Amino acid sequence: MLSANQQKFIASLSIKKYRQKYRKFVVEGDKIAIELLQSPQIVVDSIFATERWAAQNPDLLQPHLDNFNVVHEIELKKISNLTTPNQVLIVANMPEKQLGPGEIRPDFCFFADGIQDPGNLGAILRIADWFGFPALFCAPDTVDVYSPKVIQASMGAFLRVATAELELEALCAALPEWPVLGAVLGGESVFKIDLPQFGILVVGREGRGLSPEAEALLHHRLTIPKHPQGGAESLNAGIAAGILAAVIRDRQMIG
Amino acid sequence: MLSANQQKFIASLSIKKYRQKYRKFVVEGDKIAIELLQSPQIVVDSIFATERWAAQNPDLLQPHLDNFNVVHEIELKKISNLTTPNQVLIVANMPEKQLGPGEIRPDFCFFADGIQDPGNLGAILRIADWFGFPALFCAPDTVDVYSPKVIQASMGAFLRVATAELELEALCAALPEWPVLGAVLGGESVFKIDLPQFGILVVGREGRGLSPEAEALLHHRLTIPKHPQGGAESLNAGIAAGILAAVIRDRQMIG
Repeated sequence: MLSANQQKFIASLSIKKYRQKYRKFVVEGDKIAIELLQSPQIVVDSIFATERWAAQNPDLLQPHLDNFNVVHEIELKKISNLTTPNQVLIVANMPEKQLGPGEIRPDFCFFADGIQDPGNLGAILRIADWFGFPALFCAPDTVDVYSPKVIQASMGAFLRVATAELELEALCAALPEWPVLGAVLGGESVFKIDLPQFGILVVGREGRGLSPEAEALLHHRLTIPKHPQGGAESLNAGIAAGILAAVIRDRQMIG
Repeated sequence: MLSANQQKFIASLSIKKYRQKYRKFVVEGDKIAIELLQSPQIVVDSIFATERWAAQNPDLLQPHLDNFNVVHEIELKKISNLTTPNQVLIVANMPEKQLGPGEIRPDFCFFADGIQDPGNLGAILRIADWFGFPALFCAPDTVDVYSPKVIQASMGAFLRVATAELELEALCAALPEWPVLGAVLGGESVFKIDLPQFGILVVGREGRGLSPEAEALLHHRLTIPKHPQGGAESLNAGIAAGILAAVIRDRQMIG
């Protein structure tokens, strides 16, 4: 049974202000919920699931019985952000402190320079996860990593890729040895340029590209070569991030 | 001024059944509208724009004055699929006949094997456009290319990349010399495999990958190598398509 207060509270977590106030966020759907419950990274606040889901996942629920609520599918629909029928919704605690730049080993990581589309930011988290990038840093004007749509699009990558919000300038100041890379028009082909062994890969905002502030900080100006017959003005920000990460990792394996 | 009938008609075009009945679709927003009006590919049915937009684009409107309607921003909002304020909406005619497989030159083209997310299909169109793939073929269970969200996400790529709906089997039968490529788990690294000079690049459905029918038709089983420290189960379908297209074009330039 879902109380009116619970319903109101969960709905409030779709707004960044309330997520930050309570330091909690929402994770939905069978697959991500199971991954979350198996992960040691995130502390669960409460679980709302149908009787059916509970019966299928008794072991996962065992440690959370005090904070578990059986709800009807119709009740779940009222608090769900998903369009497809859903069996489980988890309220989780944000990590107590965000990743400090000094805590990561020298490797490649992403910096999201104002990405607005939650689907894009989620896809970039998933790219980081696939290519073993340990972290995604976000400029303060980037869509919130803990927004429901980013969490869902990340497909559980938020459990493995550390995230933190800070200005690129502050990140560069904290990691002065790290080269900064980003895609710009008229840069050098990512397939041909000499790439460093670690660095900060900046992904620009949709429809604008890198901010002038970010561009001024680049050590490596990369371009994904457009085909001579190609017509598009640009690639989607997530797609560009995926291509750069794939090529960087391939070149590291060769080099 | 927008009549109730016009409003109803335009709203109906957000549904595939009515798009197919009238063979018309909707294009919105300043940038894509201007591209569309400059393109010889698509015949315009009617234009709905604010007085301000009309004053800024007299030359583009000139050939369409008979089918041009000045509307107030508030009226435009009623018929718009966009969330941001908009100045122009165009109803356009679908091409009279769809691309026949026999009409394209040997090159790489995409086959969308049941992609469901309009943002993904739009991104794939944009990838095709950037990398000069002349065509995107879609399985009948793929989201409709002319749905408003695909058109918007394609950023005008629908004007340059030919599209057609047919089964992969029929496409292969029509292009018997064309090798079929697709990403599967446990395939060969796209960075290392010998790639053909042209072919059909199949993109699988989100969360499912290639259908067994499509997988059975593959000549080249590709994989985007996951980093040893990587955790994600898969990449987003659009991201995978972008990486494959980028690597294929790079390898062609080298080889």
